[in-house]
Amino acid sequence: MPELRKDPVIGRWVIISTERGKRPSDFPGEPRKRSTKLCPFCPNNESSTPPEVYSVRENGSQPNAPGWSLRVIPNKFPALRIEGDLNREGEGIFDKMNGIGAHEVIIETPDHLKDLANLSVEEITRTVQAYKNRIIDLKNDARFQYILIFKNQGEAAGASLEHSHSQLIATPIIPKRVFEEIEGAKKYYEYKERCIFCDIYRQEIQDGSRLIVRNEMFVSLTPFASRFPFEVWVLPTNHNSQFENISDDEAGAFAEIMKITLSKIAGALNNPAYNFMIHSSPVDGLNKNAYHWHVEIIPKLTRVAGFEWGTGFYINPTTPEDAAQFLKEIE
Amino acid sequence: MPELRKDPVIGRWVIISTERGKRPSDFPGEPRKRSTKLCPFCPNNESSTPPEVYSVRENGSQPNAPGWSLRVIPNKFPALRIEGDLNREGEGIFDKMNGIGAHEVIIETPDHLKDLANLSVEEITRTVQAYKNRIIDLKNDARFQYILIFKNQGEAAGASLEHSHSQLIATPIIPKRVFEEIEGAKKYYEYKERCIFCDIYRQEIQDGSRLIVRNEMFVSLTPFASRFPFEVWVLPTNHNSQFENISDDEAGAFAEIMKITLSKIAGALNNPAYNFMIHSSPVDGLNKNAYHWHVEIIPKLTRVAGFEWGTGFYINPTTPEDAAQFLKEIE
Repeated sequence: MPELRKDPVIGRWVIISTERGKRPSDFPGEPRKRSTKLCPFCPNNESSTPPEVYSVRENGSQPNAPGWSLRVIPNKFPALRIEGDLNREGEGIFDKMNGIGAHEVIIETPDHLKDLANLSVEEITRTVQAYKNRIIDLKNDARFQYILIFKNQGEAAGASLEHSHSQLIATPIIPKRVFEEIEGAKKYYEYKERCIFCDIYRQEIQDGSRLIVRNEMFVSLTPFASRFPFEVWVLPTNHNSQFENISDDEAGAFAEIMKITLSKIAGALNNPAYNFMIHSSPVDGLNKNAYHWHVEIIPKLTRVAGFEWGTGFYINPTTPEDAAQFLKEIE
Repeated sequence: MPELRKDPVIGRWVIISTERGKRPSDFPGEPRKRSTKLCPFCPNNESSTPPEVYSVRENGSQPNAPGWSLRVIPNKFPALRIEGDLNREGEGIFDKMNGIGAHEVIIETPDHLKDLANLSVEEITRTVQAYKNRIIDLKNDARFQYILIFKNQGEAAGASLEHSHSQLIATPIIPKRVFEEIEGAKKYYEYKERCIFCDIYRQEIQDGSRLIVRNEMFVSLTPFASRFPFEVWVLPTNHNSQFENISDDEAGAFAEIMKITLSKIAGALNNPAYNFMIHSSPVDGLNKNAYHWHVEIIPKLTRVAGFEWGTGFYINPTTPEDAAQFLKEIE
């Protein structure tokens, strides 16, 4: 019998199709192609990107020249523009404003052949610190209400360049999906006076069936109402609503659990394309007690079709319990 | 300058990326493959599907045998099961219930080589009547709160069989996406005492820049805050919240505008894969004045990636004004 499960935060129901019971080998994976053509993210090609806004460099090396181990640049083809005013206005019954925002690319390594999961914990920690520093800088811009860090890995997940990178987009409005999560968490907090994410990870640690791995500061699990096969969440066990408040110790522990989790996903599913998104509080920093930052990782294994578009709910052919078990067993 | 536009019904912002300005030829299309292997939806193969629940047949032909022009069957691999009780229960802080529902397939034509857009208006009207009759029948089952009709055409849109068909799923809850639309429409109605969809199509007819085609009872347009390039909505101009109330005259006019609209999309975009969903009121039939049934058509041209998953808003590289202009010009 398929099961309907409700996401406890935003209230979305999903269909967990236990009978289809898809195993990792039922999904094709996406073995990484390695193109030899000119890559704008490789060392010596710095001039083919916009000038860097942040970098980690060897002493003495010059900006926009080799010698870096991490580089942040504005996106050459930004979805939103950094210059200008919002000019919010109507058009009959419709609402619009200028597409103002920031759109940056975090090049995580100079090595074209490495994925994020192949980097050392120290190198991933550098990436985490770059996320944090860019958010702190962009929060000074009063036009921005939300800053999202995300990663598209692999063509099927929407990456247009294969050299390992993450992205940052700052938006002048609080996106709908974020608003819903905050509202859901607030409602729970008003009722229970506890953070729903804290309650989730505590129940999952006790239950164990959806737990993948934990270290001293983070836990990685498959959510009860997973939309997608092998969907994984990573949560800090210290309650904290804003990613950019991450301490240096936490940054290291976060890098470690991300490396382990992404490596398990790559191992179980033949290097699938994936997306991850850091869900963090809007810039206003309200709802500190109710909200809890976390990462959502979605391996790109199934297609979203008419049913999902028409209803906003999802059919997941792999139970989160099976997915957690498979991932747990991968070394 | 990119533009942020707000969906007037559910409040979702999208980025209309005017500068990327993608034209129809920038998208690859998906020329239809025609496989010769055994198709369970072709005449003479009726025994390879579950027994039909509805059909349009020549006089004297037997159920589950050739002689039909349209057939409705239960899905052989249903996402939800028809037998059983809901048994709603908790699991700690989580909520679940049995996956009870109906999942049917509407085989629109016996001809393996025809798409819905290639059928005659009369044949499409038959399909529309089948949708209507199946909904009216399933509404008698008190376990169902919502009934969705949708179509996945082409592999990229999630179709697993190429023989032209639509699907029906009846769910025991009102899906989140539907709930949001109803709530948005209600809020507008409380404020204006008018239906927001009526206001939208009236403004679009007057404005003209996003209008594709209209007949005496329907209008087809690209929505102001289109999420996807060449997204198209079809709305009845007689206010009506429930699709299954469609009159015989309307069914013919609806078939006609769907044929024209889908043919224009196929012509402009080289037969793209697409999804369409009929958005209609939940079974409860409340909010008759506020809600307005309509169809949303999404050609499958772009990928949903980390930004969309993380924020719930969309980057659309083709303005709806350009899309409408291209579609208008296709004969």
